[in-house]
Amino acid sequence: MNPDLRKERDNASFKTEVLTHILDGGPTKTHRRREIESLVINDPDFHHEDLNFLSRSERYDAAVKKSALMIVKLREYGISDPEEIYCYKSIAKSHFNEALGLHYVMFLPTLRNLATPAQQEKWLPLSLSFRVLGTYAQTEMGHGTHIRALETTATYDPSTQEFVLNSPTISSIKWWPGGLGKTSNHAVVLAQLYTQGHCHGLHAFIVPIRSMSTHEPLPGVVVGDIGPKFGFDEVDNGFLKLENVRIPRDYMLMKYSKVEPDGTYLKPPSDKLTYGTMVFIRSLIVGESARALAKSCTIAIRYSAVRHQSELRPGEPEPQILDYQTQQYKLFPLLATAYAFHFVGQYMSQTYHRITGDINQGDFSQLPELHALSAGLKAFTTWAASSGIEVCRMACGGHGYSRCSSLPDIYVTFTPTCTYEGENTVMMLQTARYLVKSYTQACEGQQVGGMVSYLSETPHHRLQPQPLSSRPTVVDISDLASLVEAYKLRAAKLVELAARSVQGELQRRKSKEEAWNSASIDLVRASDAHCHYVVVKLFCAKLGEVGDTAVHSALSSLALLYALHGIAQHSGDFLQAGLLSGPQVTQVSQRLKELLAQLRPNAVALVDAFDYRDEMLNSVLGRYDGNVYENMFDWAKKSPLNRTQVHESYHKYLKPLQAKL
Amino acid sequence: MNPDLRKERDNASFKTEVLTHILDGGPTKTHRRREIESLVINDPDFHHEDLNFLSRSERYDAAVKKSALMIVKLREYGISDPEEIYCYKSIAKSHFNEALGLHYVMFLPTLRNLATPAQQEKWLPLSLSFRVLGTYAQTEMGHGTHIRALETTATYDPSTQEFVLNSPTISSIKWWPGGLGKTSNHAVVLAQLYTQGHCHGLHAFIVPIRSMSTHEPLPGVVVGDIGPKFGFDEVDNGFLKLENVRIPRDYMLMKYSKVEPDGTYLKPPSDKLTYGTMVFIRSLIVGESARALAKSCTIAIRYSAVRHQSELRPGEPEPQILDYQTQQYKLFPLLATAYAFHFVGQYMSQTYHRITGDINQGDFSQLPELHALSAGLKAFTTWAASSGIEVCRMACGGHGYSRCSSLPDIYVTFTPTCTYEGENTVMMLQTARYLVKSYTQACEGQQVGGMVSYLSETPHHRLQPQPLSSRPTVVDISDLASLVEAYKLRAAKLVELAARSVQGELQRRKSKEEAWNSASIDLVRASDAHCHYVVVKLFCAKLGEVGDTAVHSALSSLALLYALHGIAQHSGDFLQAGLLSGPQVTQVSQRLKELLAQLRPNAVALVDAFDYRDEMLNSVLGRYDGNVYENMFDWAKKSPLNRTQVHESYHKYLKPLQAKL
Repeated sequence: MNPDLRKERDNASFKTEVLTHILDGGPTKTHRRREIESLVINDPDFHHEDLNFLSRSERYDAAVKKSALMIVKLREYGISDPEEIYCYKSIAKSHFNEALGLHYVMFLPTLRNLATPAQQEKWLPLSLSFRVLGTYAQTEMGHGTHIRALETTATYDPSTQEFVLNSPTISSIKWWPGGLGKTSNHAVVLAQLYTQGHCHGLHAFIVPIRSMSTHEPLPGVVVGDIGPKFGFDEVDNGFLKLENVRIPRDYMLMKYSKVEPDGTYLKPPSDKLTYGTMVFIRSLIVGESARALAKSCTIAIRYSAVRHQSELRPGEPEPQILDYQTQQYKLFPLLATAYAFHFVGQYMSQTYHRITGDINQGDFSQLPELHALSAGLKAFTTWAASSGIEVCRMACGGHGYSRCSSLPDIYVTFTPTCTYEGENTVMMLQTARYLVKSYTQACEGQQVGGMVSYLSETPHHRLQPQPLSSRPTVVDISDLASLVEAYKLRAAKLVELAARSVQGELQRRKSKEEAWNSASIDLVRASDAHCHYVVVKLFCAKLGEVGDTAVHSALSSLALLYALHGIAQHSGDFLQAGLLSGPQVTQVSQRLKELLAQLRPNAVALVDAFDYRDEMLNSVLGRYDGNVYENMFDWAKKSPLNRTQVHESYHKYLKPLQAKL
Repeated sequence: MNPDLRKERDNASFKTEVLTHILDGGPTKTHRRREIESLVINDPDFHHEDLNFLSRSERYDAAVKKSALMIVKLREYGISDPEEIYCYKSIAKSHFNEALGLHYVMFLPTLRNLATPAQQEKWLPLSLSFRVLGTYAQTEMGHGTHIRALETTATYDPSTQEFVLNSPTISSIKWWPGGLGKTSNHAVVLAQLYTQGHCHGLHAFIVPIRSMSTHEPLPGVVVGDIGPKFGFDEVDNGFLKLENVRIPRDYMLMKYSKVEPDGTYLKPPSDKLTYGTMVFIRSLIVGESARALAKSCTIAIRYSAVRHQSELRPGEPEPQILDYQTQQYKLFPLLATAYAFHFVGQYMSQTYHRITGDINQGDFSQLPELHALSAGLKAFTTWAASSGIEVCRMACGGHGYSRCSSLPDIYVTFTPTCTYEGENTVMMLQTARYLVKSYTQACEGQQVGGMVSYLSETPHHRLQPQPLSSRPTVVDISDLASLVEAYKLRAAKLVELAARSVQGELQRRKSKEEAWNSASIDLVRASDAHCHYVVVKLFCAKLGEVGDTAVHSALSSLALLYALHGIAQHSGDFLQAGLLSGPQVTQVSQRLKELLAQLRPNAVALVDAFDYRDEMLNSVLGRYDGNVYENMFDWAKKSPLNRTQVHESYHKYLKPLQAKL
């Protein structure tokens, strides 16, 4: 092992393993996770050339192979617990995506949620044996987040008892669904239902798109790959143009809405029913934000301990770049963020399961808050993680730009989370809608609960800006509970400001929608402050569960760093709201520097505790043993451009050029 | 043309062409630029398949072909003015890099700067006829910014009058130089010179690395491609390991330092001489920041005018997404930034040429300031542009993630500017060193000049925080000159704070270097504020040169937006320094919203004025005619994965899987 890394690990003030158990949720879970990870790592079937050296077609090929392998292996091992499957797949996939991803995440759940028992009896066995390879085709070229505007039509023809599906315009072509381009032979297609001359809005249909025997596209189906993207090379995101494609009546998923043989349409009893899946997926994404950032921090911090550069003390050897304050200031707040998001992800998952229990007993009361929270936190965490990964990459200097660092791959695979499953700004505005509604209720004297209860707690007249001199400063910047309070008051202030902004616009006789739009900068800002408060609060709450003194101390420093760094980044909000004084903001800067120095000896141990095996990081810079340079050289030698000593372009262009001049 | 875009163009309040002339520096320059661009666009030799559909080896091949073509064509057309060559190449390369880039940018200039007349006589003709294909090998695997630590050795052997070059360790392998992997047959190698048992530090040597007849690597030379990167696919960034490679004595570049035949070393007269090239390249990068951001804004703003989504007024058709305030808030400040950086780039280039004139007459007095300014502005503009490109990409929703948007390519090609030619944080600290030095001089009563003259102007006692009530508020947030003043005072305040921070650390008996490191967060912040001030000031100054009233009005709104947006982002600084009151910060937010609405009708015209031909943008989303969707479909059909209807992976993995289960 690299001596610098050994020294770092020897000097840590806590036992890495104890923290790993906390992150996993207990030693048994750590043990089982490692067991599963070893199944992949020790399996020669999963060894393959570095994907970075392959063409896109080869990468897709490798992903399909891996998907097929995983199915067989998981059945062989009898692994069926969703968490364990997730764990197995995570290590098999590394940062990349599964070729059959949407079959699992969207196609099967849609069958289970929207198909009648008879339909399930037909389709589930076919899908679980992969005779049916499914995807979920919602987004169209011209229509994303606002799904009501989707243009694909399904028109019922009672004479043949069939639906006729069409893509009436270019912009109505289904676009982006994963696995649609080449892999799937069926798709759940969202289309506007027309029967008896009326449009009844969006419904889901099972549409066979490729032959189950030859895999060739069926008549009337124009299907293919949408072309190369920033990342997701291994996924055949696809397009689908339907030209008078006829499907039997019972290929419409009819658990709730129905079309009878004569074309009579029967309405669904409620439209809240698909709410839950979205909430679940957005909660998962919060956890993904934590993981992507944790991996990036692991790579950047280990490399910063191995890399030596410049001079700190004249005449002495070059110091580790982790000793530079500016490097610490880039990486340690992100490390703190990764921990914060990890705990938020745990909380979201627990809350989701708790509320799902309530929902199954008919109690929907907490769903709106969970929906608002998952939307906002999805946006808040993905934005922070996405930009954080790039900070980690650039903190590795030039080598971060090499694919051998894995940071480019982590970024391009992660950054779409800012856009999919609800575009982030739209998400923030959905959360804002809930906040403004709760604020209005609180103003009317109603008690609002859950994470927004502060809107009832805070007497609104106290939120008026007051001269600093006339009010006591209540915030103690060394006390986390006091900082949680400050974040709460900031959120309350900004929610109030946004609500008033909407009201102000309405008084200028704008329509409700225009007023909302004219206040939307303020609304996003309010949501952001609310989410920030929730994250600080949950991080602080987690500390109460940590028994080990050494670990508690290290995590407390991280939580304090997270809270103070947020204040330094948004000092204007805290100053303007009169929550902090100017001298206190200066103290915050000073305290931040002390915390960086305090965390420095534990930095490597804190990333080690995430416990990412080298096979999961797939990064030369982030190797556990720190043997970066020799492995970088070995990696480079395998570059496809090195297969020949003289590239053909020399003979084709350079030699002729030399001859000509 | 798309009717939305036509309407946008019809509604603009100014003539696009007039603004284009201002950006180019006059109608004649616009005319000539377009003439040169047409030479490429109408030349069938430059038409090729979309690079996104090619493998890395094919992309490298295409780049070499293009480099060779450009050489022949430029000679054919007799284009020799550097600006015109730059223009020709820009359009031929689009966002990508030139295979022979370092031959022009580093190899030839190094020969001209460091070779003796006799050496130039030998090497220049060989290089200008491309028999010698050169690159510049400085960076090593373990050593970047801090070049004094480079490990490559060149040991003089007087018995044969040769230098023996070696890469003594893995970390000493030359790493990253463009064109080194496959293209070049010679490299200028930076190595530690040893003669007569002493090390004399870094010197430059011409090292033949490949045979000029077969292009095979020469004995003792291990050379190759460093493997795939985030971007730069078309460039063979390379490695070079030297194993007892012998070169004649006169292959050392000896214009300044010399080694005599017996091994006697003669020192150079001054070490300031290579200063100028760095300053020049960093100034160029400022212009590149403007261009990369201008292209990204062009794509995102045109697409936002074409794309319709969601509801603003119930029952009405989906609005253009450019009508959403949140979309305007993402894009318009970036548009303002692109203009600001364009004018800063023009200023840097003029200043460089002015000061170069002085230097040629022996006057080095202004070089330190130019050096500090170019370092800081390189960092300031590349950071802003790099993150801004990603904001533009995400503002295009899912389609921004497709390679057909070109935004991924623009990002990966641009983002290395944050790292190369001086890592950004190191650059900021270099600027800070100059600022602190100037501050100290000002405190001692010396008059400091140029862009830092404010450090002399501002009486330091006035910078103490004072209660708002006791001092008149001087800033008028609607007046640009007043805002420039506020940025100046903020910079002065933060420079003072950083200087005191260094002094404070020194008083704790730290060494000078440790004190500097412990204050480095403050130092970077001070540089950032200084650069921000310079940008606002130069943007404001540019307005004075604009005669056309309509254009002046549009540019003034942009300048005001730029200044106020910066204040909103850093409101804590302005509040803490007592430059703005809380209510004023609220007014700034309000004024920003008004400016967004005011700029909205001119947004498309403001990007049209950058005058990027479709062939330069290479973006389906950013097309001038706005016909996005049909062209996206056409583009996707060409995806290599669509060459066959059924991908081979179906037969290899999916069919067998279905049979097995």
